[in-house]
Amino acid sequence: MFTLPLDVMLRAHERIRPYIRHTPLAPPPALRSEFHPNLRLKLENLQVTGSFKARGVFNTLIGLGTERRERGVVAASGGNHGIALAYAAQVMQIPAVVYLPEEATADRVARVERWGARVVRFGRSWDDAHAEATAFAAAEGMPYIHPFEAEPTIEGQSTLGLEILEDAPETDCVLIAIGGGGLIGGSAAALKALKPDVHILGVEPVGAASMTCSLEAKQVVALEEVRTIADTLALRGVGEHVLSLTQQYVDSIALVPDGAMIEAMRWLWLEYNQLVEPSGAAVIAALQTGAIDLSAFEHPVAVICGGNASAEAVFADYEALARQKGSLE
Amino acid sequence: MFTLPLDVMLRAHERIRPYIRHTPLAPPPALRSEFHPNLRLKLENLQVTGSFKARGVFNTLIGLGTERRERGVVAASGGNHGIALAYAAQVMQIPAVVYLPEEATADRVARVERWGARVVRFGRSWDDAHAEATAFAAAEGMPYIHPFEAEPTIEGQSTLGLEILEDAPETDCVLIAIGGGGLIGGSAAALKALKPDVHILGVEPVGAASMTCSLEAKQVVALEEVRTIADTLALRGVGEHVLSLTQQYVDSIALVPDGAMIEAMRWLWLEYNQLVEPSGAAVIAALQTGAIDLSAFEHPVAVICGGNASAEAVFADYEALARQKGSLE
Repeated sequence: MFTLPLDVMLRAHERIRPYIRHTPLAPPPALRSEFHPNLRLKLENLQVTGSFKARGVFNTLIGLGTERRERGVVAASGGNHGIALAYAAQVMQIPAVVYLPEEATADRVARVERWGARVVRFGRSWDDAHAEATAFAAAEGMPYIHPFEAEPTIEGQSTLGLEILEDAPETDCVLIAIGGGGLIGGSAAALKALKPDVHILGVEPVGAASMTCSLEAKQVVALEEVRTIADTLALRGVGEHVLSLTQQYVDSIALVPDGAMIEAMRWLWLEYNQLVEPSGAAVIAALQTGAIDLSAFEHPVAVICGGNASAEAVFADYEALARQKGSLE
Repeated sequence: MFTLPLDVMLRAHERIRPYIRHTPLAPPPALRSEFHPNLRLKLENLQVTGSFKARGVFNTLIGLGTERRERGVVAASGGNHGIALAYAAQVMQIPAVVYLPEEATADRVARVERWGARVVRFGRSWDDAHAEATAFAAAEGMPYIHPFEAEPTIEGQSTLGLEILEDAPETDCVLIAIGGGGLIGGSAAALKALKPDVHILGVEPVGAASMTCSLEAKQVVALEEVRTIADTLALRGVGEHVLSLTQQYVDSIALVPDGAMIEAMRWLWLEYNQLVEPSGAAVIAALQTGAIDLSAFEHPVAVICGGNASAEAVFADYEALARQKGSLE
């Protein structure tokens, strides 16, 4: 059984505080009463680099110490972990190499490169890129920064749970999407350490239910195939540590199809003017489809875990309009 | 000289509090040091209906009283005022008719209709729609809700200034975009009433510099033509009240071209994952182009006044991707 002591999580929180944003809970009122009237949204899409991944990455890099990180660091990432690593490496002035699967969107590649990291595209999925990046890191003697399974990463993600109770101690239920499982594992450990009766509800894509399958098998199992547009949730297999934390602390997991995530993206845009990626809307999709029922709770919080949607089309459209009006310059 | 007493603004704030969101200042740290290190963003794009307009509309409709509003209300709007009016009317269960210029984007029309208002498209610009809507309202005996010049509207917008000092009393400079001028007029009156030495810096599009022209002429003058993609700032003329408030309280006004606003939209998206409309990014554009220099200030705040960008292309792209993967349902 893997455990995460409260004092370790509290120390991680102090360590990363200067580097990350304490993200806000969306201000009420909600526009519609279709959901629970007290539902709060934790807008983690406002985090530096647009997702919770900055928490684990900063905790890891700070913990490495100056000497071990000076040659640079390596990661493999469907996107957000790589973007966070590139940013943190730039802040700490060390080199970074980020392996991305070939199907990573242009938007994600551009965000990684924006922070000065070297991008290597490899393989069909995260798992392929991960294997290659691990070998490269070993050969080069550079630390490989795992996106969800390493202890300092999970400690870093746990700070999101701490922040929720800091801002809303009355919280009795938290909804969190599951990709690799680091966010739900870490946050659930933090939330239950401080408030044991809080409920933790997970959400996975129908097409990448790696945690659900591993829970059923009572061990880590790899899916033969993943099929979802929520690329940051598209993992074939979770890790031992996060499976253990999920077994201990997560009360149930709901599944959502891609179409429901897109509907939820539209809802977040229309109700809160927050444009997020599919994974960021997964928890809303679980409410809209009825896969999660909040009627037993008083103060639920849904974590909007990431915002890095592919939005270049929007800016290109405005540019075309300005060109047409002759008002660009 | 038009004045706005502090107690009137404070009463407006109490009146609208149950209906609007107290929007957050974006959490530091900023990702880059290209701007002032203490620059805070007031994320008014998180307001109900995506812009500050909800403040003025709720203050106006509540002030009308049950009897005067029961037949319904009428407005003309380039977009955000109409969206706010439709929403507020739905909350108060009264009918609403919204006149929009013919070039209003499909996204804006959909947002107005979403809240149950009847949409009438008329004329080339807001000024045309305004004239027609005013005549319709008079003929039908329905109150016409002016987007920026009426006193209750300006009182409502002033509450944004009050909120900034509530959250950040150290603020010494506030950047606000100018369309009709209601937001800058109201907020500047509030800010200077509470803290007379705070600086108020306005921003207008090069192609719709109606406030700048009226200030120079020392009276309201109408531009012959407006040419900007920032449709919510595209007014031919401001009003007497807001001109008077601007003369009293605004320290200077900078001009920005459309291309700079699009660059600023990209910056807000990459640094904060906030997708906003051109007007919402105008204050950032003024910093990026150097039109506004903040070096003399310690604690500047830039108001991100509206977020209703046209984003349907993003969702359509994700739908196409899910269809291709066979994961939509």
